[in-house]
Amino acid sequence: MSASTVPAPRPPLRVALAGIGVVGGGVVRLLEANRDLIARRAGRPVEIVAISARDRHRDRGIDLARYRWEDDMGALVAADDVDVVVEMIGGADGAALTLARQTLGAGKALVTANKAMIAHHGLDLARLAEEKDTPLKYEAAVAGGIPVIKAIREGASANEIARVYGILNGTCNYILTQMERNGASFAEALAAAQAEGYAEADPTFDVDGIDAAHKLSILAALCFGTKLDIDAVTADGIRNLTAADIREAEALGHRVRLIGMAERDSGENGGGLYQHVQPCLVPSDHPLAYVPGALNAVVAEGNFVGRLFFEGAGAGAGPTASAIVADIIDIARDEYGPAFAMPVDSLDQAPAADAGARIGKHYVRLIVEDRIGVLAEIAAAMRDAGVSIESLIQRGGDDEDSVIIVLVTHEGPANAIHAALGILAASDHVVGTPMHMPILAL
Amino acid sequence: MSASTVPAPRPPLRVALAGIGVVGGGVVRLLEANRDLIARRAGRPVEIVAISARDRHRDRGIDLARYRWEDDMGALVAADDVDVVVEMIGGADGAALTLARQTLGAGKALVTANKAMIAHHGLDLARLAEEKDTPLKYEAAVAGGIPVIKAIREGASANEIARVYGILNGTCNYILTQMERNGASFAEALAAAQAEGYAEADPTFDVDGIDAAHKLSILAALCFGTKLDIDAVTADGIRNLTAADIREAEALGHRVRLIGMAERDSGENGGGLYQHVQPCLVPSDHPLAYVPGALNAVVAEGNFVGRLFFEGAGAGAGPTASAIVADIIDIARDEYGPAFAMPVDSLDQAPAADAGARIGKHYVRLIVEDRIGVLAEIAAAMRDAGVSIESLIQRGGDDEDSVIIVLVTHEGPANAIHAALGILAASDHVVGTPMHMPILAL
Ligand SMILES: NC(=O)c1ccc[n+]([C@@H]2O[C@H](COP(=O)([O-])OP(=O)(O)OC[C@H]3O[C@@H](n4cnc5c(N)ncnc54)[C@H](OP(=O)(O)O)[C@@H]3O)[C@@H](O)[C@H]2O)c1
Ligand SMILES: NC(=O)c1ccc[n+]([C@@H]2O[C@H](COP(=O)([O-])OP(=O)(O)OC[C@H]3O[C@@H](n4cnc5c(N)ncnc54)[C@H](OP(=O)(O)O)[C@@H]3O)[C@@H](O)[C@H]2O)c1
Repeated sequence: MSASTVPAPRPPLRVALAGIGVVGGGVVRLLEANRDLIARRAGRPVEIVAISARDRHRDRGIDLARYRWEDDMGALVAADDVDVVVEMIGGADGAALTLARQTLGAGKALVTANKAMIAHHGLDLARLAEEKDTPLKYEAAVAGGIPVIKAIREGASANEIARVYGILNGTCNYILTQMERNGASFAEALAAAQAEGYAEADPTFDVDGIDAAHKLSILAALCFGTKLDIDAVTADGIRNLTAADIREAEALGHRVRLIGMAERDSGENGGGLYQHVQPCLVPSDHPLAYVPGALNAVVAEGNFVGRLFFEGAGAGAGPTASAIVADIIDIARDEYGPAFAMPVDSLDQAPAADAGARIGKHYVRLIVEDRIGVLAEIAAAMRDAGVSIESLIQRGGDDEDSVIIVLVTHEGPANAIHAALGILAASDHVVGTPMHMPILAL
Repeated sequence: MSASTVPAPRPPLRVALAGIGVVGGGVVRLLEANRDLIARRAGRPVEIVAISARDRHRDRGIDLARYRWEDDMGALVAADDVDVVVEMIGGADGAALTLARQTLGAGKALVTANKAMIAHHGLDLARLAEEKDTPLKYEAAVAGGIPVIKAIREGASANEIARVYGILNGTCNYILTQMERNGASFAEALAAAQAEGYAEADPTFDVDGIDAAHKLSILAALCFGTKLDIDAVTADGIRNLTAADIREAEALGHRVRLIGMAERDSGENGGGLYQHVQPCLVPSDHPLAYVPGALNAVVAEGNFVGRLFFEGAGAGAGPTASAIVADIIDIARDEYGPAFAMPVDSLDQAPAADAGARIGKHYVRLIVEDRIGVLAEIAAAMRDAGVSIESLIQRGGDDEDSVIIVLVTHEGPANAIHAALGILAASDHVVGTPMHMPILAL
């Protein structure tokens, strides 16, 4: 390059951090540790100019004295020397949402790790960002350190996506892997996850699939060009899984994973959007079966690219900070566009698809009293509900009087399974709540 | 958005295609099939305005009559109505390179799938692109449809990358998977790959690791911020692998994969860059062990994000077109920057690291005459070369007079293995060429 064409060095990108907890602390550490490298890659230095959290005096294990502290988050937005506000507070509403609106409203760039807020208010925020022509980025909100928002928004952008699915919650995957390895019950595995710091004291958000639902709704909007619709996502968690389910799945050549899946019905079926989080049986020749521990993984199936599979750490200070700083670097490079890949007004409004009408094979597990005629009763219920049985296994149960019955159905609608279990709910011989899960089709 | 802020619709991005073979045909099909979707995502239509290949009259199985044909590639560049030239001719030099230089020299955008050309001339082309302030994009050049250039350049941009490695050649992986499943010899599996269209009549580029070396050199430059240096990449292919090697690896709980790996030595060791393609033993708890058939996969290890793993189709018309059109959409969106993430002049010049000094465990397989004293001879050679043996297995060989000896070493430098095999080369009792492979460390 001749000297005359060397562009003037670009001024630093000035960043304010709101929330210095697990993620915020990680971002401070990352920006300090990889400072020079980031400046080279971003084409300009990235500087923290101000920080804020609730309690100024809390020991956060990092030296924050060099940064300007603001007790009032609003001061981060108002400051003349702030280009980007990074929201790492959490919660769909409240302080996080207020800050996000203020930031975009002031025409400043917003980076967030907050899946709950994006799932609930992403459209409004994206519209505000468009009006103000300022970036809104949220790579860290889905699958932590895996750059899956980018991979789908930009890497797979040439494809019509048939479906997107994956392991979106590391806590659940950690629990399931524990159950798999040790034959532990759900309760035991949850306790282990809590002891290891992989699960919160109140694990509801994770184990009931709510966190995964937030992430799924974001992926669906990006993949299908539809308006985010968190209310249309249904979620079943993993609380009802037993050690026996994990064992029986294994005997069938499968592993149990909590899968969030979004799929758009064909036009003939109304073009509705299916968005569901639930435990599934994953066949052992599918890469999701090999995702261990607290990792996340996402699959996107495109009409030209085929199946893409991405795996990595879905949470934690380092991986989440990696995603946040990648967003910051994109902003420093001026490489960004509409938050959901296209203007909000051009996103489709897709009706929710009828989940019960979805066709697939299912796993059904019942615990029944060990007496003559019970099997006939189950078979009759299945027949009457129109469920066709591919295979059935009966094994001794945990106590002498009960047996476990595991059946795999032929392809059929989920509704038929619900109907059959409805019939059996009236039976005196069925013990506890039956479990049923779809078997993931390749 | 208020009506007054609606931006004027952007004009179409006008694309010229050079080379209408496997990949070029795929790009035509993709741009036609997903036309509306691409316009929505790109924010403007993407239009093919001209095409070119060698033989205008060749039947390409697609209707090209609607597109302007140019016999002379140069006319694509010269045309006023062309914004982007897509090079899908192939070859490191010749027509492809001429076209690439003309395109960038004219200040037009270049998209290419040509790993050979990027590996050999990527730096010069990137410099030219910088001078002319025009995009140079090459997502399709590495790992086909997997958006791994983007994932590393942008998704992992906040991280110092410790090493990058993966399965970069689908032909080899197909052959290895065949050997694994059927116990086939290399020659049999190669013939099957040729029959299935996964290998060329002359498979040299693939099976000797040259194609993987091209891709590895590109990944290394991106990950480490170093100047592309294809001459520093060393490659061992898979020709010398036997059915017994695959079987013994399996018995040790491993799978054999052709791995391209790049790693930067620490400053203390001179900061050199190690870039090597070779068959490796991959432990069964590593995701690369589960990559089947012609798929590709790439692992990048970042200092904050940890291990990222990307898998998908590494070749073929559809996946390669997907990557090319993703590049085109980035250009349409004005979301692009320097080809190697930073200006060419700021890339480091890294010396080649001493591959022989690399520490690791190794697999060694020898076929020896079945007679007293041979084992002692081997053990002595290993001892004299400083190789420490972790385990050794002796089995009956393919004929009565020979036995197979498989040993796994403790951690040590590759040089010591070479020295030991050098000593044994002089032995009358060793039959054929011994095989040795590193065992991939997690
Ligand atoms: N942790 C992960 O692995 C992970 C992964 C992906 C995404 N995320 C998302 O990242 C966000 C932050 O998560 P985190 O794990 O870092 O949470 P955290 O450790 O609880 O940290 C939250 C931070 O926000 C501050 N804060 C909370 N409420 C506030 C309020 N009303 N006003 C001002 N500051 C307030 C806290 O201040 P004090 O420290 O002073 O109390 C704390 O610094 C959440 O949206 C989460 O979903 C987290
Ligand atoms: N195939 C894959 O799966 C794949 C995957 C990733 C990357 N790539 C890369 O993509 C590029 C194209 O590969 P391909 O498989 O599509 O090759 P291909 O099927 O052999 O097609 C090559 C095309 O280039 C034209 N061509 C060749 N030499 C030419 C010359 N001297 N002047 C003008 N046109 C010329 C040919 O014209 P005619 O048709 O008239 O002969 C043909 O249309 C290569 O760089 C390859 O490495 C391929």
